[in-house]
Amino acid sequence: MPKQTKLAQSLPATVPFIAPEMTERARGRAFTARLGANENGFGPAPSVLDALHSAGPEIWKYPDPSLFDLRQALSDHHAIPPNQFILGGGIDGLLGTLCRLFVDHSTHVVTSLGGYPTFNYHVAGFGGTLHQVPYKDDMADLDGLLASVVRSNATLVYLSNPDNPMGTMHSASAIEQFAEALPRTCLFILDEAYIECADAQNIPNLAVDQPNLIRFRTFSKAYGLAGARIGYGIGPADLIASFDKVRDHFGVSLLSQAAALAALADQTYLTETCQHITQARDHIAQIARDNGLIPLPSQTNFVTIDCGQGGYFARAVLQSLADQDVFVRMPMVAPLDRCIRVSVGPAAELAAFAKALPLALTQARG
Amino acid sequence: MPKQTKLAQSLPATVPFIAPEMTERARGRAFTARLGANENGFGPAPSVLDALHSAGPEIWKYPDPSLFDLRQALSDHHAIPPNQFILGGGIDGLLGTLCRLFVDHSTHVVTSLGGYPTFNYHVAGFGGTLHQVPYKDDMADLDGLLASVVRSNATLVYLSNPDNPMGTMHSASAIEQFAEALPRTCLFILDEAYIECADAQNIPNLAVDQPNLIRFRTFSKAYGLAGARIGYGIGPADLIASFDKVRDHFGVSLLSQAAALAALADQTYLTETCQHITQARDHIAQIARDNGLIPLPSQTNFVTIDCGQGGYFARAVLQSLADQDVFVRMPMVAPLDRCIRVSVGPAAELAAFAKALPLALTQARG
Repeated sequence: MPKQTKLAQSLPATVPFIAPEMTERARGRAFTARLGANENGFGPAPSVLDALHSAGPEIWKYPDPSLFDLRQALSDHHAIPPNQFILGGGIDGLLGTLCRLFVDHSTHVVTSLGGYPTFNYHVAGFGGTLHQVPYKDDMADLDGLLASVVRSNATLVYLSNPDNPMGTMHSASAIEQFAEALPRTCLFILDEAYIECADAQNIPNLAVDQPNLIRFRTFSKAYGLAGARIGYGIGPADLIASFDKVRDHFGVSLLSQAAALAALADQTYLTETCQHITQARDHIAQIARDNGLIPLPSQTNFVTIDCGQGGYFARAVLQSLADQDVFVRMPMVAPLDRCIRVSVGPAAELAAFAKALPLALTQARG
Repeated sequence: MPKQTKLAQSLPATVPFIAPEMTERARGRAFTARLGANENGFGPAPSVLDALHSAGPEIWKYPDPSLFDLRQALSDHHAIPPNQFILGGGIDGLLGTLCRLFVDHSTHVVTSLGGYPTFNYHVAGFGGTLHQVPYKDDMADLDGLLASVVRSNATLVYLSNPDNPMGTMHSASAIEQFAEALPRTCLFILDEAYIECADAQNIPNLAVDQPNLIRFRTFSKAYGLAGARIGYGIGPADLIASFDKVRDHFGVSLLSQAAALAALADQTYLTETCQHITQARDHIAQIARDNGLIPLPSQTNFVTIDCGQGGYFARAVLQSLADQDVFVRMPMVAPLDRCIRVSVGPAAELAAFAKALPLALTQARG
């Protein structure tokens, strides 16, 4: 047999998340409420569907590898030069490319224990050593992350803010101070996938030329385009340019580029969606309280609900919800795994959750 | 500054191909004939556009990471088990993932000198050593490739058949004998991107369980979906499973999956398209002959035309064609670069090529 690399031989075949489609096929029945993957059940803008319809007949063409129009539009939107944007296959894809640039067997990387599994997957996939810092009061522990970076002389530190899976968010000044305090030899990967769902005053004001900072944004969440696989990084021009060393240049599909361009142009729809998201968060929180559970404050498109017992209990709640055709996920690591995580969605899906939760709690307690 | 890996530091920022959009922007004028990127100008099936229209509103959902429906459909289509298919972001993306599994600084890889640049880019991107075997009579030199594999103890050998950039194709038996003769320690990467355009009797009959063989197919060429970025590999189940070690599981967009599923189901349209492609090949060949040039026999969706002089001449022809708004490409390496490479397209675009070619030749000779 042809030999894979030593690194590849050492890796397990895995998948960071079990997709709801996989569960549905396994049990032979569809979910009626899809509230587990932090998607945006309010769907894409009608203007995005129009753009897709117009672009469809062009699908025989290779996409523009420079994503020129989209970078220009992002530049206008953020008032940042176009050469400080890198587009890619969602934040997942971009994290993979970034890890490829920075991670080998000698690299130390810091993240939160229970943080985004796909980042950990990419770090492991390039042979890096991961240092995981426990959450503190259900928030990423900034002091702990910083201490771990210094201790391990880490090349990368990852933080999602607003946080996934907890929904919490640090203040703008806390993030600004963290960025300032970080050794300049460590790249700060700030995953802002949920930033459009956050209150404006919480968004940190960071120098876009800081040589050790890259921020990631996505069209998967508030913009409602998870299926399109398109996200972007904002960083210093030389770091952005280095993606061209290894990326799959023609990798972002033509329709995804068209969809993102239309979504970005329709800020009115985004504002409406964010209002729906806020209302749905309140609704989910109320459902939690109605059932004697504690909703965590959320700055995302989901609400993490403290079920008040250990992971065994939350897993039982999740199972019963699934049995009642409600798809929800939960954090994977203790003590976060005392919670379940409910994504926003239309009223009918939240009603299904509200209806299923009491029985789920009864069964989990039984 | 955070340090990139030694490998990343050693790599240039590059792009394997200059996209026509980039040229158009640089000169401020659009091409009227897009015949350079081996796209399928006859476009996608109406049934594909219908499928895209239906799937559009679902774009808020993450795509199925197992691509279950599509693997099932491919299984039915090819009469090969579903676990022998890996889907990914076009053959480009799949070649990148495959190189990641097999290539590090100690890996030797064999390909043809002047063969597919994106494969070379991926090999270099993972630090492998590339051995390039010159073409022989405008075809990949199978004996030369085999000898190079043995000499270098190569882990991978790449062959596109039908060939890009020359359009030529080896007989089925020649490929079968090559696969048989190859050391079992060397993985045979058989890129069949253009296979639907080839005569059926030329398609090799290879054991799909051969442990050192992976074949790549795509929806970018005959199926007319280059913009969707979706292709697939066929190989032994354990090799296919190992893609799950490193791939971006959710990376193939929901609409691309829907488009490919519809395209595969519409074999009637594919047959019609292949007839258009054959006619267009004949037409391009006739245009070449009408201008005193020699068209190479083609089993692809393009015709490579021998301009009878060196690379300097073909480049001048290409430049004049571009000045006349006709986008065409050419092989990059001597002696292949005595040729230009004209992709099939609708009659109007071929007419533009026919109109522009005489002046291009005159100018190149001047």
